[in-house]
Amino acid sequence: MNIIPKISFLKNKEEDIFFKRIKNLTGYKPKNISIYKIAFTHKSANKTDPNGNKINYERLEFLGDALLDASVTSFLFHNLPESREGELTQMRSKIVSRKHLNEIGKELDLISFAKKPTSKRKFSYNAHGDFFEALIAAIYLDRGYVIMDKFIKKKLISIYVDLDQLLGKISSYKSLFIEWCQKNQFNYEFIAYEDSGKSHVKYFAVKLLVGNKIVGKSRATSKKKAEEIASRRAYYKFQKRIE
Amino acid sequence: MNIIPKISFLKNKEEDIFFKRIKNLTGYKPKNISIYKIAFTHKSANKTDPNGNKINYERLEFLGDALLDASVTSFLFHNLPESREGELTQMRSKIVSRKHLNEIGKELDLISFAKKPTSKRKFSYNAHGDFFEALIAAIYLDRGYVIMDKFIKKKLISIYVDLDQLLGKISSYKSLFIEWCQKNQFNYEFIAYEDSGKSHVKYFAVKLLVGNKIVGKSRATSKKKAEEIASRRAYYKFQKRIE
Repeated sequence: MNIIPKISFLKNKEEDIFFKRIKNLTGYKPKNISIYKIAFTHKSANKTDPNGNKINYERLEFLGDALLDASVTSFLFHNLPESREGELTQMRSKIVSRKHLNEIGKELDLISFAKKPTSKRKFSYNAHGDFFEALIAAIYLDRGYVIMDKFIKKKLISIYVDLDQLLGKISSYKSLFIEWCQKNQFNYEFIAYEDSGKSHVKYFAVKLLVGNKIVGKSRATSKKKAEEIASRRAYYKFQKRIE
Repeated sequence: MNIIPKISFLKNKEEDIFFKRIKNLTGYKPKNISIYKIAFTHKSANKTDPNGNKINYERLEFLGDALLDASVTSFLFHNLPESREGELTQMRSKIVSRKHLNEIGKELDLISFAKKPTSKRKFSYNAHGDFFEALIAAIYLDRGYVIMDKFIKKKLISIYVDLDQLLGKISSYKSLFIEWCQKNQFNYEFIAYEDSGKSHVKYFAVKLLVGNKIVGKSRATSKKKAEEIASRRAYYKFQKRIE
């Protein structure tokens, strides 16, 4: 059964660059690069296979959505052993929300993997999240469930999911950290600067200093988000002292 | 993290029987039998761990539901390469419907793995499907995704899922088969008899004969269902001749 039609509409050099970028993104050499090409083919590209069937990420996105749900549910099951189904459902909704997936797709700059729409139209904002889900399915089809599950943990959960924050126990790590510094009369400083590199998306880097020592670093698509992540990292570094 | 509390409320002999029955059901030796015990602990049993947390299948059912969705979605993705998301969604809803899961749980006689409710209350009909979902999560936690995926294919998909029928291409294999016999002037006969064995659920066995030769066999919880399955098996045996 021909579930992954071979497509070759990238020129050789573009192929090489695409392959290397997928390798950097996922952390391994793709076995079947065609799957990733489909994952980053937007419907607006109007690609079809020789039988006239549409080729785009939509079927992969559908599969990725279900796989993401399973992986996140398993993560929550293991990490919230005392939560009942109601709370697990709520937590999962927050993690796999459209808003959240769009944020992650944007952070990973996934749109830059796709061919730009041919017309003057831009991708919709939801394309960020769509590409993320399609990528998950591509990894699953190329390398299996276990590697896909690890990718989700590495790229989504370890960076963007903070259970204490989602459970409403902590609303802002930045406030928490500042409070702790003030209480202890420590000098702190957030240094933020633009750091987009070659990316199509604007990035901000943040260094958080206590005295002259860097205690947290991060890079994200907004200054506020980067400060929050740096504060969270600093918080966990110092948490025994803070609590 | 103590995600699977050890529970031992079965007596030694009961333990042995339970272990063997799980082995027969799943086709392998369970590594951590406690997980299966929880999967078959109904909320009406009112079990708690030493910290006072409830022990029953509900959290496992929640996890199993998401895993089942992922596995079925992947199956449909591979087997319906020309279906778009809308059709895939419809097909998935039919396969993982509450009605369908209850049927499967009943066919597998999963209720017999659970301790009977202490009061005079009976399990609700939905308990059949609930136990099936909890069992899926137990297999996943005990043996990993790949073995769980195989179990779903073996116990659910290969037996109960007929894509042609679900797609509305074939409404009854029995009618189709009878039509073919009449057209070819073949004598056919359905022999049905009760065959419950030691099971708590009533089973019917069906043999489908053409001339004196058995062309299809099956066993299910209703005569109608068993006839349909036997006809489907016979149909696929003869399909080159029928089509």
